[in-house]
Amino acid sequence: VKIALDAMGGDFAPDSTVQGAGLAAEELPEGVSLVLIGQEKIIRDKLNEYNIDNSKIEIFHADEVIGMGEHPTKALSQKPNASIPIGYGLLKKGLVQGFSSAGNTGAMHVGAMFSIKSIEGVIRPGIAGIVPKESGGFGVIMDVGANADCKPDVLFQFAEIASLYAENVFGIDKPRVGLMNLGEEEQKGTLLTQAAFQLLKLSKSLNFIGNIEGRDVFNDKADVIICDGFTGNVILKMAESMFDMLQSRQIKDPYFDQFNYESVGGSPILGVNGNVVIGHGVSSPEAIKNMVLMSHKIAKSGLHLKIKEKFKE
Amino acid sequence: VKIALDAMGGDFAPDSTVQGAGLAAEELPEGVSLVLIGQEKIIRDKLNEYNIDNSKIEIFHADEVIGMGEHPTKALSQKPNASIPIGYGLLKKGLVQGFSSAGNTGAMHVGAMFSIKSIEGVIRPGIAGIVPKESGGFGVIMDVGANADCKPDVLFQFAEIASLYAENVFGIDKPRVGLMNLGEEEQKGTLLTQAAFQLLKLSKSLNFIGNIEGRDVFNDKADVIICDGFTGNVILKMAESMFDMLQSRQIKDPYFDQFNYESVGGSPILGVNGNVVIGHGVSSPEAIKNMVLMSHKIAKSGLHLKIKEKFKE
Repeated sequence: VKIALDAMGGDFAPDSTVQGAGLAAEELPEGVSLVLIGQEKIIRDKLNEYNIDNSKIEIFHADEVIGMGEHPTKALSQKPNASIPIGYGLLKKGLVQGFSSAGNTGAMHVGAMFSIKSIEGVIRPGIAGIVPKESGGFGVIMDVGANADCKPDVLFQFAEIASLYAENVFGIDKPRVGLMNLGEEEQKGTLLTQAAFQLLKLSKSLNFIGNIEGRDVFNDKADVIICDGFTGNVILKMAESMFDMLQSRQIKDPYFDQFNYESVGGSPILGVNGNVVIGHGVSSPEAIKNMVLMSHKIAKSGLHLKIKEKFKE
Repeated sequence: VKIALDAMGGDFAPDSTVQGAGLAAEELPEGVSLVLIGQEKIIRDKLNEYNIDNSKIEIFHADEVIGMGEHPTKALSQKPNASIPIGYGLLKKGLVQGFSSAGNTGAMHVGAMFSIKSIEGVIRPGIAGIVPKESGGFGVIMDVGANADCKPDVLFQFAEIASLYAENVFGIDKPRVGLMNLGEEEQKGTLLTQAAFQLLKLSKSLNFIGNIEGRDVFNDKADVIICDGFTGNVILKMAESMFDMLQSRQIKDPYFDQFNYESVGGSPILGVNGNVVIGHGVSSPEAIKNMVLMSHKIAKSGLHLKIKEKFKE
């Protein structure tokens, strides 16, 4: 098994990516190797500088780099030899079983759509986030930013996809699906959530528990939270800011430590033909490590194949 | 000046409302009296039971009560002598300068629209919430639940109304208006936020600072946060749940204590011809007290008249 990492992606690349790769390599099981994609000489120098054991690390050269601020579609067409398109090329050919990057999120998203493409039947792939639960364990929230405006059938598919993610990657049996809303009653909400509620209610395969509210993000009501990418993005960033506020007020607490983006590492793009994880631009080595480990965990679960199977039905 | 309180509204009424009224009466300045609306005998008994000094308290009898779970429009037409419609009657006639209730939110909202009505020119009145700022002081967020689906011109008006609220009630000079979005760049967001951005950008009277994100709710970027009622509701409930989680983990912190709904007390309906504040169903005496004090503060500022003036332009 080979997991690829964009060594040039992120505000602090290549230092944080190479250091993070070193940390991840120590934790990856025997037989799994890590492919660093980027400018070979730079990566090699950094591996030496940080004195990293490279027995599990390979380098795949990519001549160019897509900057954090570049326009995704333009950059992808003008720089076919940048680390992101090269990574997708390897993933598409099956030479690696996962690809992750803390680089240009737009380019990662557009790149996925143009190279490995959406799974047939999936209207809109989305990005899944993780929320730590007060009662222990984690919940899944989807979408957290890929699709600002959604249609009801798209939310319905998010429920199917995120349920498979919760089941196969987090081992949650029959995950309880909650629809994020402004009240619990069936008739509450926007035109979108009202319509999505009706679709979800009719599903026989989903474990739909109804509407949940902002106060339920961290409690044990639902394992899977469904919302449009606008709402999910606001929720996730607000949760991260809670961690930062606690930190700056010097409040230490093991539960709230899990709100740290570093401990999660990244968020997968789900609904595409491959295992793709995107990370925060500001990713530290610890965050990069956890992004790579998540990518490996998802690869091991064969999640995208399970989603594909589901949408064949 | 007379401030009215629905003595029958809320999960713990009339105990919490009467006790809260007693606490509020102690803090209201000379010359301001509190009008308790509800079943006179019950209120009188509770005033005695809790040994409350009623020198500043009047009772206005209302025969009926609208329950927390009743259908707003139906209940209002079937129970014209309930405390909520009676309260609106007093407000409309100018016999009281403010009316607040922790009772049926829907009935309070519909009641406002049918009795005192929207200010001419205001497309949709909304509910304004308060967020404590890390740097001290408070910010305003609107809408927090009255309008799940919004049009761009409605968001624009929220910016105008909430700015007047921040200015006149919280004394914030030229309040900075931020549009809640999933990214900072102008072109980011939903069709709604993209269109609202263009309207806000063109305004000469607003101090529009652009898009803000979920991480900016509590920081010092914006004094006024504009969003649809769906998003605002999720944000507010999530913030409240943070307080509850810290409480249950026994973390005490003066900043986070302000996340307690009790210390805020209530949220005004803005854009209607009168001063209306609605409270949480679960309101404690402390919450009721703060709701009444907020109602008095708003009455003193003459906010709804200033909004009316603005929309005459």
